[in-house]
Amino acid sequence: MKAEVIAIGSELTSGQKLDTNSQWLSQRLGEVGVEVRFHTTLADDMGENVDALRMARSRAQLVIISGGLGPTQDDLTREALATMAGVPLIENEECLQALTAFFERRNREMAPRNRVQALLPDGARPLPNRTGTAPGVWFEFEGVLFAAMPGVPSEMKVMVEEQLIPRLRESGKLGSVRCYRVINMFGRGESEIEADALDLTARGREPEVGITASDATISFRISAEGATEADAWAATEPTARLIYERFGDLILGEGDVDVVQALILELQKHQATLAVAESCTGGLVAQRLTDYPGVSQVFLGGVVCYGNQAKIDLVGVPSQLIEQHGAVSAEVAEALAVGARDRFGASLGIGITGIAGPDGGTPEKPVGLVYVALANQKLVAHRRLLLGQEQPRKIIRSRAAKHAMNWARLILKSDGV
Amino acid sequence: MKAEVIAIGSELTSGQKLDTNSQWLSQRLGEVGVEVRFHTTLADDMGENVDALRMARSRAQLVIISGGLGPTQDDLTREALATMAGVPLIENEECLQALTAFFERRNREMAPRNRVQALLPDGARPLPNRTGTAPGVWFEFEGVLFAAMPGVPSEMKVMVEEQLIPRLRESGKLGSVRCYRVINMFGRGESEIEADALDLTARGREPEVGITASDATISFRISAEGATEADAWAATEPTARLIYERFGDLILGEGDVDVVQALILELQKHQATLAVAESCTGGLVAQRLTDYPGVSQVFLGGVVCYGNQAKIDLVGVPSQLIEQHGAVSAEVAEALAVGARDRFGASLGIGITGIAGPDGGTPEKPVGLVYVALANQKLVAHRRLLLGQEQPRKIIRSRAAKHAMNWARLILKSDGV
Repeated sequence: MKAEVIAIGSELTSGQKLDTNSQWLSQRLGEVGVEVRFHTTLADDMGENVDALRMARSRAQLVIISGGLGPTQDDLTREALATMAGVPLIENEECLQALTAFFERRNREMAPRNRVQALLPDGARPLPNRTGTAPGVWFEFEGVLFAAMPGVPSEMKVMVEEQLIPRLRESGKLGSVRCYRVINMFGRGESEIEADALDLTARGREPEVGITASDATISFRISAEGATEADAWAATEPTARLIYERFGDLILGEGDVDVVQALILELQKHQATLAVAESCTGGLVAQRLTDYPGVSQVFLGGVVCYGNQAKIDLVGVPSQLIEQHGAVSAEVAEALAVGARDRFGASLGIGITGIAGPDGGTPEKPVGLVYVALANQKLVAHRRLLLGQEQPRKIIRSRAAKHAMNWARLILKSDGV
Repeated sequence: MKAEVIAIGSELTSGQKLDTNSQWLSQRLGEVGVEVRFHTTLADDMGENVDALRMARSRAQLVIISGGLGPTQDDLTREALATMAGVPLIENEECLQALTAFFERRNREMAPRNRVQALLPDGARPLPNRTGTAPGVWFEFEGVLFAAMPGVPSEMKVMVEEQLIPRLRESGKLGSVRCYRVINMFGRGESEIEADALDLTARGREPEVGITASDATISFRISAEGATEADAWAATEPTARLIYERFGDLILGEGDVDVVQALILELQKHQATLAVAESCTGGLVAQRLTDYPGVSQVFLGGVVCYGNQAKIDLVGVPSQLIEQHGAVSAEVAEALAVGARDRFGASLGIGITGIAGPDGGTPEKPVGLVYVALANQKLVAHRRLLLGQEQPRKIIRSRAAKHAMNWARLILKSDGV
């Protein structure tokens, strides 16, 4: 089955916004056996949308549309679908109820304008949208299936998982399955890892193995095909085993598991508790940990001690340490780790201090210099990281946070609590 | 002049790679007065490419193609253009010389296969490629101009600047300049704002105004034309003034300015200092503020008090408040704001406590319930937010953080320090 993905919005064709939905949809649909052959991006123009839908109808059997379902005058997807099919728009009772309920749950009045979101082309069915106002559209027309979803990526993704893929499966439209198994690593550079994996990444190998890097996390991506998802997964197993044997402790986990989740798992395994004192990362470690629900069992909290006075008052760093060695020093990093551990009564404390840039660097202490320290019951230790003078602030902060969390993970793994 | 951008490559339609060329081309062409109305992404398939080129010919006057110019069998752009026009491919002497010279400069032998890169549709001219092997194609056919360039972004961009834009200018195809002016707002829903702006967003209005929403920030986008960039900008002015008058304090700023920068600007303006105590947002406010360099003048730090003990020990929340009202309560939120203000010695404190979910909700205190409090020298106040039981944790945390920062901005604006 050939599919076309259509993204609608003048902010996309004008280049104001980058369309990432189409790539995500291609990947996700590819995993369930749907081959996306066309991406089309359109401005908010009725005639152009109708023509493009006609073109899509002529070359694809499945057309996924994202965007243009909002309540405003430039949201044209519903009307364009109806015009393409030559049918009227009809208010759908199920849609209207879902819309009304959405606003009631939020104690907000529904603007009259929102009512247009309950209009569907005659013959179409709604695709429920659990996380937003705009219902989607499921419209089979002359053998081609059109599925329209909101352009907001978070809403669209939930609808693909909960509505679109189950319905496609139910209607027998999904073919053989390709699965992608992703194994993530942290702590070594991409080219070093690649050099140790040339046999795995050789062209023509089955299953195919690729390497990608994202924010210093290196991932192997094993891609295998099978009649069912289980078969495809089983085909990845021998390759995955090889990778585990070869890369050991570098491996954080699979799929979405990155440094953060790997650390949380290790904390839970050892019933350890963590607290952090962050200077240059400014709350990034705490924020990433608390992105995950249920982390309060193992993460007690943190102090963002951006100024020196806060380091002294809230974390108990001796002021003479700062005077003697500077706020960016091994000594202060260790005092931050110890202070975090003790003030929160945690079994493990992390301290981070450094120069995230772009200003504030000196020849002795350049931008990118970060001290990371750990303190548990047995040890207090620090590491000096040079994360690159030319790197943007964002990257330096992210690398520092990941290094700290990965080191904490490894210490827990080798030493326990 | 309407333009279409076509990106060619199966790695794009399959979602393996994200196409960023199309966005860049749209922006760059928009700046010189070419309005891109369509993006099309195609797999390496001859029939599909020819059909798409025919479609493009029917709806655009300028068609920019990136990709498919390499020497391999799946590079089909040259042939697809020739087939679309019904003309033969002819070896172009200028192209062949450029290719030969490219390999000579690098002391490399030209593979026989590379010779196909010198083939052009009859009637086309080469577009020199200074930084790579593949020459581009400049092909005027029945009043439509086709320009094909390599998919490698760095090569493509050089060719656009050095070849495409000068040639377009020379041939009188560049019209007036279009500029986009974006005004960002926070604090009201998209449809409410739209309801107050129907006159601005009406179809056919000049300059055109669109509304987009991203993470609860609502943006007006004014698009205007002029002979020069300054003229185009001036043409947005009356509309911008209307928006400022009508939406007043909701407006955060223009361009990239979001809630965070708007708050930082307001703090700087009043020489105020801020500290935060975050429970459910877990460091998100601190992290977003410290994303910006130089914020240490106005942001003193924060406590991430995820557990109750941390609220008591580190922020000084009285334990009986937590026992009596629960950690998620107006009283505790206010105590957090006061504690943050006093422990850090800031002029303004923010306290946030709530239930970010997905678990932990009760009928009285559902997921999405967040108390935000502010404490400055004159007032201590809280707000109760219901951010939606079905919303993902990430969204609830982000909305809570933005609400808190926006409220702090407004208080500074009206009350000063």
